[in-house]
Amino acid sequence: MARVVVDVMLKPEILDPQGQAVANALPRLGVDDVASVRIGRRIEIDFVGEPDLDRAREIADKLLANPVIEDFSIRVVDAEPDAVDSRS
Amino acid sequence: MARVVVDVMLKPEILDPQGQAVANALPRLGVDDVASVRIGRRIEIDFVGEPDLDRAREIADKLLANPVIEDFSIRVVDAEPDAVDSRS
Repeated sequence: MARVVVDVMLKPEILDPQGQAVANALPRLGVDDVASVRIGRRIEIDFVGEPDLDRAREIADKLLANPVIEDFSIRVVDAEPDAVDSRS
Repeated sequence: MARVVVDVMLKPEILDPQGQAVANALPRLGVDDVASVRIGRRIEIDFVGEPDLDRAREIADKLLANPVIEDFSIRVVDAEPDAVDSRS
């Protein structure tokens, strides 16, 4: 089983009201050193057998992202080697 | 400017109807080798100065994730070195 992760984010020039709402709430938590927050989607696609990046790109383009307002990036992951321990 | 990425995904035992809908649509695209699709959120937090993982974890815990049904992982990123070229 191989996993492909597709990250879909609004293009930088598109306003992100959801992220802005989080950013505006941070001072109430005592956090003053955050410049911006952007919220997008992370899609995990598990392939049977070998991961197929071209196939994943086609899926992202047709089903997962709106290319008018969103960018996406695709990568194969093994076991999140760079993640910090916060997955509970 | 340093960026921290928070990935929020539904816990494995929680049903993901949105991902299921995508998975169900794939055979119509001619894709038969996908075992499952899970859809979560990716939040990019840009810090002024040094990235603060503890602060990011607090933000994720209080504002970004619902710990009853969601797991999150946190990491510092530089410039997406492992991403494929599909960001348009």
